[in-house]
Amino acid sequence: MTDKHAEKKMTDLGKKMLKEVEGGEGPTFETPLRTKSNTIYDDGIGCLRLGEKKELRKFLSVSQARTFMQTVAIAAKTKRFIKEELHTSIRGLFYQLKFSLGEDLDEELFSEQSESNALIEDLEVAMGVMREDLHLTTDRKGVVAGALKIRDKFAGDETVIDCEKQGRSGWMIPSDVDNGMEIEELEADWVLVVEKDALWQRLNEDRFWKKENCLLITPKGQASRGTRRLLRKLADKKLPVYCFMDCDAWGWYIYWTIKTGSMNLAYLGRDFAVPESRFLGVTMQDIIDYEFLQKLTIKAKEVDIKRAEEMLGYPWINRHKPWVDNLNLVLKTKKKIEQDALQGQRLTFVGEYVNEKINKKKWLP
Amino acid sequence: MTDKHAEKKMTDLGKKMLKEVEGGEGPTFETPLRTKSNTIYDDGIGCLRLGEKKELRKFLSVSQARTFMQTVAIAAKTKRFIKEELHTSIRGLFYQLKFSLGEDLDEELFSEQSESNALIEDLEVAMGVMREDLHLTTDRKGVVAGALKIRDKFAGDETVIDCEKQGRSGWMIPSDVDNGMEIEELEADWVLVVEKDALWQRLNEDRFWKKENCLLITPKGQASRGTRRLLRKLADKKLPVYCFMDCDAWGWYIYWTIKTGSMNLAYLGRDFAVPESRFLGVTMQDIIDYEFLQKLTIKAKEVDIKRAEEMLGYPWINRHKPWVDNLNLVLKTKKKIEQDALQGQRLTFVGEYVNEKINKKKWLP
Repeated sequence: MTDKHAEKKMTDLGKKMLKEVEGGEGPTFETPLRTKSNTIYDDGIGCLRLGEKKELRKFLSVSQARTFMQTVAIAAKTKRFIKEELHTSIRGLFYQLKFSLGEDLDEELFSEQSESNALIEDLEVAMGVMREDLHLTTDRKGVVAGALKIRDKFAGDETVIDCEKQGRSGWMIPSDVDNGMEIEELEADWVLVVEKDALWQRLNEDRFWKKENCLLITPKGQASRGTRRLLRKLADKKLPVYCFMDCDAWGWYIYWTIKTGSMNLAYLGRDFAVPESRFLGVTMQDIIDYEFLQKLTIKAKEVDIKRAEEMLGYPWINRHKPWVDNLNLVLKTKKKIEQDALQGQRLTFVGEYVNEKINKKKWLP
Repeated sequence: MTDKHAEKKMTDLGKKMLKEVEGGEGPTFETPLRTKSNTIYDDGIGCLRLGEKKELRKFLSVSQARTFMQTVAIAAKTKRFIKEELHTSIRGLFYQLKFSLGEDLDEELFSEQSESNALIEDLEVAMGVMREDLHLTTDRKGVVAGALKIRDKFAGDETVIDCEKQGRSGWMIPSDVDNGMEIEELEADWVLVVEKDALWQRLNEDRFWKKENCLLITPKGQASRGTRRLLRKLADKKLPVYCFMDCDAWGWYIYWTIKTGSMNLAYLGRDFAVPESRFLGVTMQDIIDYEFLQKLTIKAKEVDIKRAEEMLGYPWINRHKPWVDNLNLVLKTKKKIEQDALQGQRLTFVGEYVNEKINKKKWLP
């Protein structure tokens, strides 16, 4: 979204409220309900999104006045950031609000770590903007290497980043991969998403991305917004996306968040989801198919068991027999397996495994 | 250290043990004691290091046989990694050992997250090698931008990384900045270490590193081994290192770990410490000097209070009056202040603050 467009959205919000006041009413703010009951799996686009239920927030309501006022203050602040051509984090926004509004702010609401920056989510979903469009930077940690060139216009500089020329490091995926940034050249044929940076480093040393002409990406755990947006853009360019994760609660969660979004983040919808992605492994079936892995399983933790049970309850997961089989094997054996285990016999097996799984089409949907 | 040298160290360890066995004795392994009582602050070099007390581990001891055997197995494995010219993480090493040695391994000992990879620390400190020399990769997260060019020979490729041409992202500091990597060109005059990535992004947008000809580095919280080694190398090139952190338990800890090492990591010694570094802020004095900050303090947590008391007990800290004053102010007011708060009035104040503190020489030692 252009700055002009995002600024106009904030201005329109203000104008609408002003009109309500001038008409003798209290200002209101309508936003889709971000509750579990209003979170639906959309079969057509293949991801979680919010339903049609909406909530009308009123300024003239004892229980809503405080957050209402804060929401409006956030809209005003971010409009100013856009005008100033400056960015900050939600923590920076918190201090700007604290400076203007005083003590009456819940600082936990403005923590980078908190998944529920509820006030900003309200604005995003009600106004159809992304926080990146409102000049809010987010946590970043993903890395990419491979045949991809990015043109980056930023802070008066223009640079072309060649993701094949990043040595041992790879290119750090930024907070915002949309505004002022475009894909200049894309020669890679497919994308491999590797959960852990340690495994990324292993495959990068093997120059896996060069040999297999893929983009090697690690989200370093749960994918950041920037990484998810980049994956969406690559999928839009018709690159198949294969995900290579641990076979445990955390690995599955990271995968399904990339693929369909999560219950918490459903408000992001299709722009941050990659329904096309496939789960390459590791799976419980791998333990049967690769004999040496049998002694490299570890005990499933309570969280793994609980998560497996939960996932078996989601209709968009339990309609896939391979997933049901995989999760039931976890419940039955009470074991799990990490992607790191593939190195147990020899370090270079990791890349061989990835190739074999793809060649034999042995992935989960 | 060259691969040849590191490999020889492991071979020598094996030969020594073999000789002991051939001489009719049980093999032994001498390692400096990594206890609090054997951790000293070395005034000469200005950092924490281990003292002279050593421990002789014996294979023929019921209590020591298991870890002894594991230490030897690690030496053998890493020697093979060097020979194979391959790297892996300590988690990868864990699975290699699990494959060879079976179940008798404590997986917690081989977690990237654990600060006590005790067995590898034993080898590092006893043999005078770094784990990076033993082809073990580590967690990485730091980022740098500025007038620095790095020549990176890695996995058959040779690349020059220009840290001025990284757009909005910066260059991700790798796990190992020593082997196969050298500083090709260094035009920057000084180094600014910014605790939080959000503030780094703020200053990067202001092109602070370009205007002030500095290197802008964020460790993203606690500094990784790679970031600490890079800082050491830059200090060796006589660049002043200024650290810009939160005024709280975590910010102080990150600073003192960069400067002197920490009690836990004392075994690393001078190679990972930058005694020359200075604490630019934020400080409790700033709240007095910059009026607008008064309404932007937040309540100190228990961990902040406890940490302040602890630090006041360390002779290498409490001999500096400005530190004593700063910590006492925290104890007295029970407040703390974050670096993010500097954006409260206007976003661009962050860079002005850094410049002003340096110009007025208002830093803590």
